[in-house]
Amino acid sequence: MGLGGKRLRPLLTLLGGQLFTDDLGPLVKPALATEVFHNFTLVHDDLMDNAPLRRGQPTVHERWNASTAILSGDVMLVRAYELLFEHVPPALLPQVLRRFSQTAAEVCEGQQWDMNFEQEATVSIAQYLDMIRLKTAVLLGFALELGAVLAGAPAADAEHLRQFGTDIGLAFQLRDDLLDVYGDAATFGKRVGGDILADKKTYLLLTAQAQGGPIQQATLGHYLGQPVTDAEAKIQAVRAVYDELQIRPQTEALINQYFEAGLLHLERVAVPAARKESLRRLALQLLEREV
Amino acid sequence: MGLGGKRLRPLLTLLGGQLFTDDLGPLVKPALATEVFHNFTLVHDDLMDNAPLRRGQPTVHERWNASTAILSGDVMLVRAYELLFEHVPPALLPQVLRRFSQTAAEVCEGQQWDMNFEQEATVSIAQYLDMIRLKTAVLLGFALELGAVLAGAPAADAEHLRQFGTDIGLAFQLRDDLLDVYGDAATFGKRVGGDILADKKTYLLLTAQAQGGPIQQATLGHYLGQPVTDAEAKIQAVRAVYDELQIRPQTEALINQYFEAGLLHLERVAVPAARKESLRRLALQLLEREV
Repeated sequence: MGLGGKRLRPLLTLLGGQLFTDDLGPLVKPALATEVFHNFTLVHDDLMDNAPLRRGQPTVHERWNASTAILSGDVMLVRAYELLFEHVPPALLPQVLRRFSQTAAEVCEGQQWDMNFEQEATVSIAQYLDMIRLKTAVLLGFALELGAVLAGAPAADAEHLRQFGTDIGLAFQLRDDLLDVYGDAATFGKRVGGDILADKKTYLLLTAQAQGGPIQQATLGHYLGQPVTDAEAKIQAVRAVYDELQIRPQTEALINQYFEAGLLHLERVAVPAARKESLRRLALQLLEREV
Repeated sequence: MGLGGKRLRPLLTLLGGQLFTDDLGPLVKPALATEVFHNFTLVHDDLMDNAPLRRGQPTVHERWNASTAILSGDVMLVRAYELLFEHVPPALLPQVLRRFSQTAAEVCEGQQWDMNFEQEATVSIAQYLDMIRLKTAVLLGFALELGAVLAGAPAADAEHLRQFGTDIGLAFQLRDDLLDVYGDAATFGKRVGGDILADKKTYLLLTAQAQGGPIQQATLGHYLGQPVTDAEAKIQAVRAVYDELQIRPQTEALINQYFEAGLLHLERVAVPAARKESLRRLALQLLEREV
């Protein structure tokens, strides 16, 4: 965890709380629970995905072994709970633990769907959106809700913040799918085309499979599930299908829909607009990375 | 979990509570947390140990796959927390969650030591006893303590019960080591000699390695770390070394020491002796299986 990362989730908790209070001190430790939990999921997910690197360093199972990744992940989940029950006021604790546990189970369920999808011949776009909502978006929603609840926000406001976070999370993940295909290699930080090479069932691929005609289906079928002999040729060919089908503007339209839906929830939070400026700007930053 | 098992841990919680109250209804759901937690550790441990069977059925990773074992285990840990915070009175919740989390981290640490020991040339008897205390005994102690705390027991009594459970747990695990070598195949339920065939660093083997003379060391060295060509010959030879070194009576003596130490803690719990009869009888049952 010392390697950093964006620390987006605790930031969301603090910004969610800052809508309702200027005293963020009591929120810091509970906010860390979201980051420890997120890192627990990364340790276990990297093992399941057999990923060699995380944040430019060997993953836990690579540096040590699979058992160490399983057990240290398990203990990180315990530590996330500890950060909550040691630092959340008793009156709020049952509610916070209930929502945290629900979110935690959903994140695991999302990862299970993601793993299952690898084995399945067909995945619908609705299934895919459900999966990324569980795997990625609900934790961003919970992080914001946590900040609101700890800052004494009315229940309706906490709920709007949760939905804001979930919608932004969906937009964020779709943006990630898009950047993987159309991103700038200099700024993306991962190999552009990595999802295409791995036959990853992203929103872009599933949409192309749903909308493509016989020739486009044949092109996708020629490359999917086959050993990669020429990586650049595969990336070029799949991207050409995406271009023909206008997958990029379709994806951008869906990203914008989630983004706008999220902003509507943020607008409905009953605090002055000026207090929401930091959150709105963070959401924009998350979604305005250059494609 | 539907396959059963002994359900020892929730039984301990109920018997621990029954010392102090006749109204065990409110203890049932929290008691289940210890069983769900225990089964979470079995799912992850079986994966790490590459075990094919549990309770006569294929293990989760065999029946499904490794990812399913990791993720369903993760969710079982979440569910164990849920059973506590949904059903433990708010005034007791921070204390219960703190002790549960500490125990959970210790159990994971014990499993990590157990895995590490497989790779290590030498393990001391003190290290081994520390490992089984963490991996097995502390959860039995927590299960008893939980029952006492929920039943409104004084802190000193809850602590004596915890130590009673931990000592009985140590005795129980050592008895398991003993049964693996000297048990009756008809009643043991596992293959007698399984630990010997697997070169498992049990109390018996570590004691033999610590006490054996050159010839006994040579016999052990001849079989340990080598492919098993004749299983019965290996079991016979290692058991002969144990017999020469009187490992069995030494192990029985240590079991009795832990058992007696545990009973002293039970005696010091400030309730009438008649109320303790069920717990004392359960401890005897756990330790009086035929060898």
